[in-house]
Amino acid sequence: MTALPPLSMPPRLLMGPGPITVDPRVLQAMSTQLVGQFDPTMTAAMGDVMALYRTVFATANDQTFLVDGTSRAGIEAALVSLIEPGDPVLVPIFGRFGHLLVEIAERCGADVHTVEVPWGDVVPAEDVERAVRAVRPKVVAVVHGDTSTTMCQPLADIGAICRTYDALLYVDATASLGGNAFRTDDWGVDIATAGLQKCLGGPSGSAPITVSPRAVAVIEARKHVEAGIRDDGDTATGLRIASNYLDLAQVMDYWGPRRLNHHTEATSMLYAARECARLLVEEGLANAIDRHGLHGRAMLAGVEGLGLRVFGDVAHKMSNVVAVHIPDGVDGDWVRAALLTDYGIEIGTSFGPLHGKVWRIGTMGYNARRDAVMLTLAALEQALRSAGAQVLAGGGVGAAREVYEGGRP
Amino acid sequence: MTALPPLSMPPRLLMGPGPITVDPRVLQAMSTQLVGQFDPTMTAAMGDVMALYRTVFATANDQTFLVDGTSRAGIEAALVSLIEPGDPVLVPIFGRFGHLLVEIAERCGADVHTVEVPWGDVVPAEDVERAVRAVRPKVVAVVHGDTSTTMCQPLADIGAICRTYDALLYVDATASLGGNAFRTDDWGVDIATAGLQKCLGGPSGSAPITVSPRAVAVIEARKHVEAGIRDDGDTATGLRIASNYLDLAQVMDYWGPRRLNHHTEATSMLYAARECARLLVEEGLANAIDRHGLHGRAMLAGVEGLGLRVFGDVAHKMSNVVAVHIPDGVDGDWVRAALLTDYGIEIGTSFGPLHGKVWRIGTMGYNARRDAVMLTLAALEQALRSAGAQVLAGGGVGAAREVYEGGRP
Repeated sequence: MTALPPLSMPPRLLMGPGPITVDPRVLQAMSTQLVGQFDPTMTAAMGDVMALYRTVFATANDQTFLVDGTSRAGIEAALVSLIEPGDPVLVPIFGRFGHLLVEIAERCGADVHTVEVPWGDVVPAEDVERAVRAVRPKVVAVVHGDTSTTMCQPLADIGAICRTYDALLYVDATASLGGNAFRTDDWGVDIATAGLQKCLGGPSGSAPITVSPRAVAVIEARKHVEAGIRDDGDTATGLRIASNYLDLAQVMDYWGPRRLNHHTEATSMLYAARECARLLVEEGLANAIDRHGLHGRAMLAGVEGLGLRVFGDVAHKMSNVVAVHIPDGVDGDWVRAALLTDYGIEIGTSFGPLHGKVWRIGTMGYNARRDAVMLTLAALEQALRSAGAQVLAGGGVGAAREVYEGGRP
Repeated sequence: MTALPPLSMPPRLLMGPGPITVDPRVLQAMSTQLVGQFDPTMTAAMGDVMALYRTVFATANDQTFLVDGTSRAGIEAALVSLIEPGDPVLVPIFGRFGHLLVEIAERCGADVHTVEVPWGDVVPAEDVERAVRAVRPKVVAVVHGDTSTTMCQPLADIGAICRTYDALLYVDATASLGGNAFRTDDWGVDIATAGLQKCLGGPSGSAPITVSPRAVAVIEARKHVEAGIRDDGDTATGLRIASNYLDLAQVMDYWGPRRLNHHTEATSMLYAARECARLLVEEGLANAIDRHGLHGRAMLAGVEGLGLRVFGDVAHKMSNVVAVHIPDGVDGDWVRAALLTDYGIEIGTSFGPLHGKVWRIGTMGYNARRDAVMLTLAALEQALRSAGAQVLAGGGVGAAREVYEGGRP
């Protein structure tokens, strides 16, 4: 083939449910030249990452590190490392990503049970308790914030239930972490995983994870160091984990003092992950969560000011994304295309039962900013008008401005 | 915790077996801001990547794309997508990464058979044929270039054997691709995978892969689209692939015209992968392979000029890495530390039977350059002298210069 020109991408303001525009300081960190895989400065950077993500996850867990892959790799690493074929697993489902947990747990050979609520609701703790009592799961696997519905599942009660019935609690915090309160230790979460591409302001491709001591014990009992680097102290006991790449026992040995070779760390993504967390810690986690709250409220007020009806139980909405019904008679894909083409702004479409019915608009990470919210509302007003919808001139930006100026809560 | 300073890493010349210093043009591409996951410019960039890697892999395979993870993720994606529990698999082993293929195939539930040769040799085709005749494997899985020994396994005969006996041929080309001849279609390779961190001059974290039509047919027969995005046309037939994240049937649907949502593409790593391949295609694959050949010969002559004894069968050595015996009485780790501390140059240690016995020195990707070779030889001479070894002054750089100036083949 003939050579292609260098990469050149158009400017976009990514206001969908993620991935979102990356903080330029993260791009800058990613452009740092590599050092060797076991260079003292590399292992120091790995140590920084572990400490930073302990703060981000609000945990004292030693085992806090990165899985080299997208957020989905983190989810599968957690589940495949815990679950043995036949293990009972309970999945409370309130959106698409609950179904993903079921799907992954099934591929691990689990005996999967579910508690499901309609999209737009969260799962009541008493429903979870009833199911836990009946199923006696080894693992309860639940999503914290599900972008498919924008809902944020309360977890403190579920954590307490899991302790009472001696189940391990796995939480997918991909969409919520950094923009909504998340307290690994206080809530009794055993493994939580995330991605960089939502409230953390980075690109997809690295999955922060934290593992409690009791989950570490379960995983360590299944450790089989691979042939070629095994030594006499490596005596296998439990059932071998079904994946090598996502085997957390081996990944922990790579991040731990033994530094046992496993994969070749994705150094540029580690640099990105470090910078995402460094910026959050510099801002202060509580401040970052407040910031997401403020801009989420402004966007919510703005879309309502444009006359759009919000989807789901707003009391349980994640701060960083809102779903709105596409008005009758408006072509949702046409509006999205107009926003992208004429204004360079991306908002999200939807999956499953909401496909074609709602748009999803995010305010997260680097884009949890006043100018991003105001620009999006201004452009959305114009795109809606072009699509033939009745909209109050200035209704969106006016309502958002009221939130920023303290006139609305 | 208190905030950390921005990332700041020391300059290193990475002359080990990989990862190596990243081409600055790749770092620059990676610092490009994101567009949305299904933005027309993003899907166009995905199309570029597919076309570019067809050239890099020397294939006409439609299904040529990226797995989001390190090279090991690509290996596991290939094997877990092909292998069902109980399937006979044959692995010719000539170094550590052959053992890794065994390990991964075992975790997939394969009935694994091996043909093994001592480290430093390659596996004779007739040994492979005898084993294929006896085992009748569904898959033959073999490493092309194994950095643990520096050997490069000839593949054309093995490809022909696999066609004769109707076995699928999987090849791990991580260490060799881009720096040594690799001909997917001519050799009858069904799946080949790689990484960016060797001859491609990028960072670890993305795994280029190519899949032949007959391997696609095997994988498609096992496609189970996940709940939540499944539609009526998705009728499952074969045994579900044990991994969701590394399920090539779903990943192919994400890269294909259906654009079925799976993981969130690691966009920055895709930008990196595009630039790595773009630079290779711009240079011309044959020229890049010649360049690796030239600098590899210069390094080989240089280490011999320093009086070091080369490990393994040089006739089958990869062009991009050489292993040399650590001289008697010299502390190998001390020399490596001195190179790093005093000269900022990293060379590699070794695994398994070669641990503590050889150093591995790479000349690949961005570092397959005259100045990188000459600097490394100059510094190695000094470090050897400091460690008490007898070395001929200028013996390394002189021998390398002879290669560059045409005095030696």
